[in-house]
Amino acid sequence: MTDKVRICLDAMGGDSAPASVVEGAILASRDRKADYEVVLVGDKGRIQRELERLNISNPPFEIAHASEAVGMDESAVETARKKRNSSLAVGMRMQKENKVDGFVSGGNTGAVMATAILTLGHLEGVDRPAIASYFPTEKGVAVVLDVGANADCKARNLYEFGVMGSIYASHILKRENPRLGLLSIGEESTKGNELTLISYGLLSESNLNFIGNVEGHDILKGTCDVVVCDGFVGNIMLKFAESIGSYLYFLIKEELRRSVLFRTGAFLLKYPLRSLRKSLDYAEYGGAPLLGVDGVCIICHGKSSPKAIKNAIKLASRMVKEEVNQHIKEGLDSSNQIKEKDDRQV
Amino acid sequence: MTDKVRICLDAMGGDSAPASVVEGAILASRDRKADYEVVLVGDKGRIQRELERLNISNPPFEIAHASEAVGMDESAVETARKKRNSSLAVGMRMQKENKVDGFVSGGNTGAVMATAILTLGHLEGVDRPAIASYFPTEKGVAVVLDVGANADCKARNLYEFGVMGSIYASHILKRENPRLGLLSIGEESTKGNELTLISYGLLSESNLNFIGNVEGHDILKGTCDVVVCDGFVGNIMLKFAESIGSYLYFLIKEELRRSVLFRTGAFLLKYPLRSLRKSLDYAEYGGAPLLGVDGVCIICHGKSSPKAIKNAIKLASRMVKEEVNQHIKEGLDSSNQIKEKDDRQV
Repeated sequence: MTDKVRICLDAMGGDSAPASVVEGAILASRDRKADYEVVLVGDKGRIQRELERLNISNPPFEIAHASEAVGMDESAVETARKKRNSSLAVGMRMQKENKVDGFVSGGNTGAVMATAILTLGHLEGVDRPAIASYFPTEKGVAVVLDVGANADCKARNLYEFGVMGSIYASHILKRENPRLGLLSIGEESTKGNELTLISYGLLSESNLNFIGNVEGHDILKGTCDVVVCDGFVGNIMLKFAESIGSYLYFLIKEELRRSVLFRTGAFLLKYPLRSLRKSLDYAEYGGAPLLGVDGVCIICHGKSSPKAIKNAIKLASRMVKEEVNQHIKEGLDSSNQIKEKDDRQV
Repeated sequence: MTDKVRICLDAMGGDSAPASVVEGAILASRDRKADYEVVLVGDKGRIQRELERLNISNPPFEIAHASEAVGMDESAVETARKKRNSSLAVGMRMQKENKVDGFVSGGNTGAVMATAILTLGHLEGVDRPAIASYFPTEKGVAVVLDVGANADCKARNLYEFGVMGSIYASHILKRENPRLGLLSIGEESTKGNELTLISYGLLSESNLNFIGNVEGHDILKGTCDVVVCDGFVGNIMLKFAESIGSYLYFLIKEELRRSVLFRTGAFLLKYPLRSLRKSLDYAEYGGAPLLGVDGVCIICHGKSSPKAIKNAIKLASRMVKEEVNQHIKEGLDSSNQIKEKDDRQV
């Protein structure tokens, strides 16, 4: 027996699964500092073939068989309800039954989310779970949530995102008294849309370190540690940010065509570009936690490298050890403001 | 008398007004190809002092006096209603009375918009005017609207934005049958929020070249010529995009500290960075048209250079000559779909 945290890794999720996932599992398990164990869930035959390809006869992790896989384009809700033997469903059930402590997948985001919510359920006091993503800033990363779990939100959801994001920033990013901003279209409390105007009131009355509205240009500047917004805005901004690297490469290619002087020194560009790409690509941070479910679930990018998979496993393990969910429950509990208000209002 | 288009320029609007505006007016008026006349509206004394500073005794434009100016932080609606002698109010009235054909200002965006709507009124058939902004793409610029006029929208508004944006792209950007995308969080028609789901239906049934939902990463890629979204999302995305240049400079400064090799060739970076900054800064395109008012109104960035002011005047003049508003009226008229639907639905 061991008291190590056990993290379940979905072997079948991701653009190049199971190859890159198996490599990620090996990388993570061979880490000397690893204070976790990996349980790889998926088609045993296919996992075995990957191990053979890598000449590994004695893998440093457990394998749990799941006969089905979820495609990247399958319907999320349908999959969560009907595909009971998918790697997602099997892994999530293992967590529900306390056989593992956390789950990591680079598969179909919607399906991971729906399966997590259906199997693990909401964390006590949480109306809507949210996906939190890292954004780079001039002062280290910021946590932005929601980036896609909820296309339409109520103010109480944004308030909950504020609590969950602040606790995450405090315990995982180790920010003291994290500054929380509400994404809007003007600094003043009177600027915004219907949703942010009500949310502003809720957040102001909370015991969070709410610094008020922040605007689109505040994120990269690092005005705050945590940014809350509905999942529609957050997802659009995340995908816009992820596309900047490619656009820059396009501009540079154009310059190369035009200028000889530029061509001679162009190779130097790879350094800042690499750091830009890294800083704008959320795969580099491991993955995005789905906060607000009664368990630990990390959603990785479909293109995750083995290193990103390893980082996601480490993040899941830290979330378990730091008892982030316990802190979220207490955080929501200590603030009764929502319960006292007319539910229709918020 | 002359049959040249007359464009009114707000001398008092912008961070360094009236200095840069007066310089912009001179630049625009001295253009040999100018097929427009400039009427500078603002405090005559202050304009005169700028002309003296520039050693110009015989300015190449008319001056219309306005005794008041609107500050960058003044309340938009209040200003529009009460400050009747501001350069904004005087200039906009001149357009209403057909003394000029268009209006350009780099002043307080909210106040320009509110004054335009109050004085000129809505264009026939338009429920909500919208600010259209250029975004750079790998295939030339795209028009994104709304970027801030309407924080909350109904589907009929997004439909109207689609009509106005398509006509603008067709007549001003000269795109043949411009591709129109609805900004959302998934390509499928079933993905999005309440607003986009209904809007998708309206746009599909229209005679516009609607290519469906586009996502955050599609904009810079150039997937379409026109992107519609509500003004909340559009404004956040615009400001996020405008902040990328500064973030890149920050990353490069960090690299300079780290790498000697990089330092020796860093000056070469200025070329692609300049084109990035240019391409992401909407001041370079002159200004953003407020579409849907019964007149021509171009909103410039507060930091507009004289060249940007000149470009905005040229844009206003083109909008008059191309009869963009007439085409919008016809475009909205040719499609009776909204009138036939239950208004509460859309």
